Amino acid sequence: MRVMVLGGDGYLGWPTSMRFAMEGHEVTAIDNYARRRIAADTDSDALFENPDLEKRAALFRGVSGRTINVSIGDCADWEFFSEIVNVFRPEVIIHFAEQPSAPYSMMNVEAAKFTLNNNLNTTFNVVAAMANFLPDSHLIKLGTMGEYGTPNIDIEEGWLDVEHGGRRQRFLYPRQAGSLYHTTKILDTDLLWFYVRTYNLRVTDLMQGPVYGISTPEADLDRQLYPNFHYDDIFGTVINRFAVQAIAGVPLTVYGKGGQTRGYINLLDTLQCIELAARSPASNGELRIFNQLTETFSVNELAARVQRVATNLGFRVEIKSIPNPRKELEEHYYNPKYTGLRELGLIPHLLSDEVLADFIEKIVDYKDKIRVERIVPRVKWS
Amino acid sequence: MRVMVLGGDGYLGWPTSMRFAMEGHEVTAIDNYARRRIAADTDSDALFENPDLEKRAALFRGVSGRTINVSIGDCADWEFFSEIVNVFRPEVIIHFAEQPSAPYSMMNVEAAKFTLNNNLNTTFNVVAAMANFLPDSHLIKLGTMGEYGTPNIDIEEGWLDVEHGGRRQRFLYPRQAGSLYHTTKILDTDLLWFYVRTYNLRVTDLMQGPVYGISTPEADLDRQLYPNFHYDDIFGTVINRFAVQAIAGVPLTVYGKGGQTRGYINLLDTLQCIELAARSPASNGELRIFNQLTETFSVNELAARVQRVATNLGFRVEIKSIPNPRKELEEHYYNPKYTGLRELGLIPHLLSDEVLADFIEKIVDYKDKIRVERIVPRVKWS
Repeated sequence: MRVMVLGGDGYLGWPTSMRFAMEGHEVTAIDNYARRRIAADTDSDALFENPDLEKRAALFRGVSGRTINVSIGDCADWEFFSEIVNVFRPEVIIHFAEQPSAPYSMMNVEAAKFTLNNNLNTTFNVVAAMANFLPDSHLIKLGTMGEYGTPNIDIEEGWLDVEHGGRRQRFLYPRQAGSLYHTTKILDTDLLWFYVRTYNLRVTDLMQGPVYGISTPEADLDRQLYPNFHYDDIFGTVINRFAVQAIAGVPLTVYGKGGQTRGYINLLDTLQCIELAARSPASNGELRIFNQLTETFSVNELAARVQRVATNLGFRVEIKSIPNPRKELEEHYYNPKYTGLRELGLIPHLLSDEVLADFIEKIVDYKDKIRVERIVPRVKWS
Repeated sequence: MRVMVLGGDGYLGWPTSMRFAMEGHEVTAIDNYARRRIAADTDSDALFENPDLEKRAALFRGVSGRTINVSIGDCADWEFFSEIVNVFRPEVIIHFAEQPSAPYSMMNVEAAKFTLNNNLNTTFNVVAAMANFLPDSHLIKLGTMGEYGTPNIDIEEGWLDVEHGGRRQRFLYPRQAGSLYHTTKILDTDLLWFYVRTYNLRVTDLMQGPVYGISTPEADLDRQLYPNFHYDDIFGTVINRFAVQAIAGVPLTVYGKGGQTRGYINLLDTLQCIELAARSPASNGELRIFNQLTETFSVNELAARVQRVATNLGFRVEIKSIPNPRKELEEHYYNPKYTGLRELGLIPHLLSDEVLADFIEKIVDYKDKIRVERIVPRVKWS
């Protein structure tokens, strides 16, 4: 298949590009390096340096014999994007090309505006290109479980059947997110649904929970092929932050009461999900939505796990609650459904103590590079 | 009160500016003339010429003694908008500054992109300015009944209480619109709701049905103060189109089966609703949503009414079904609730035969300017 990966330099985009290339597909990875720029601007560089996309593709070719075509440019720019789409004619478009940091989206007006415009215009360009040039291509779009927020009822997979006044209607599951970044993903979903039903497009929208891990069969060929690893308050998610804090010997910082529960997924399983979606595409006119997680934890549960595993590895680990910089419920009902991807064939890699220990040990090698002042929250929601 | 009207040159923005000025409020009207540019570009000029905003404000001052401050600029431009907001310090912001044509938004990629970016960035700038500079100002935002689409259950006023698996949650009423323009208003609502609950803003979101009429007490002071009147396929809504077709002696064109039912409202009542909302503002942290319509009609019912009234005025009127250029249900359930504005004090002016006759007679004076080729649909949904 001809596969185009938007955001191919990213934490998920790069391992996805390698995986599809390794399996013999023709891959073009596109990136505008926005995350690298934001990381530099906000003193949030990744724990170890990642060679740029061209260098990584060359390195990967050296160790695997597989080619990843690279194009550096902005998918939110219609002239650039419509041209490359017409040259490459992808059969599958995998869209990760969004500003992914909730705190960055809440930092100031400029950062918020960039997030809104980058994310919406990229998604718009993708569906406009499909409607105009690629009516039978399949879009695999990364959404987020954060779109749903934490409602007091079960979270269904994308859709909700409502009975009201004796009549019935199926709706997109109502979404209510906790940051501007997450809200842009709601807008994406609204936009996708309009274009799918109006122009008969094929779209799979993956509502993904926070991903952890840096190891994949392809990344393990050479450490320089690892995806970027962020532990800072801007791009670092909670498992990364806790692992780095444990290694650095500073307390694991729980925001507020720590009852915030979310669905998590191993990087290996993200790759599985995307492959499964690509292999069994959505039909024309179908917006197929999956909840992409394999288990749920509260922040307190995660902190306790990291503490236990890191202690066994010889670290001294404390846990400390700090004021929550975010506006979110710290104790809430949370019951998401996530059977769709299992039915497609997903075999989960859960966060066992062994998996967590292996993850921590991989990071230990970079211990000297940790700058703990990057971990404390620098952006407040109000 | 200091009242800022965004889109002050528009069909609703101009009469609203006059009304608030007439009642002694300090009014600043802002417009970027986007509608005038689009009308010129698409051969969709209004039936009669409207002097530009500065000239109309001068004219209005001459006949009423009231001042409307005018500023020509783009509310989607943060530098322009944040500056004017800080100079004028509005207590009420009335936001009409959106590209309002569904067919234009579906015309081509460029028009779609303009609609998306103009509408979203203006709404974003408004809430960002409120959060940063005007935490107690009240936003009155024009949404559309089109956000809801035509669901098979009753349309509540903005919110829906869902019972699911024995638990309950209140959500924004799920929205699913029929054009990109209408979809941008859904995105607006999502964005407003995020900013309201995160920054404790005060917002009234008015889900308005198609508006008809050109007469208001202020506009009637001088015909040059009439709001713009569009009858073309780009900006003209169905009542305008039918009235002009009846006068021009061409058949009233019903799209498809004509069972499409919508909620309508007289221009006089739109002004009432906005005044009522301004007088009783939303509370901090409240997104207050009203369905702004006074009665519902199917397209077939409207055609029959225009035919009857125009026949009585001496016109020969035929009705003809043409292929529907849109993608929409032509027969459907439609039961919107709209009690909130009545409870605030709205006294509706319904579309009686007298009102319709008066409307048609006002347009007859411009009969020679009608160009019937502008009425046929030039944009198809797919």
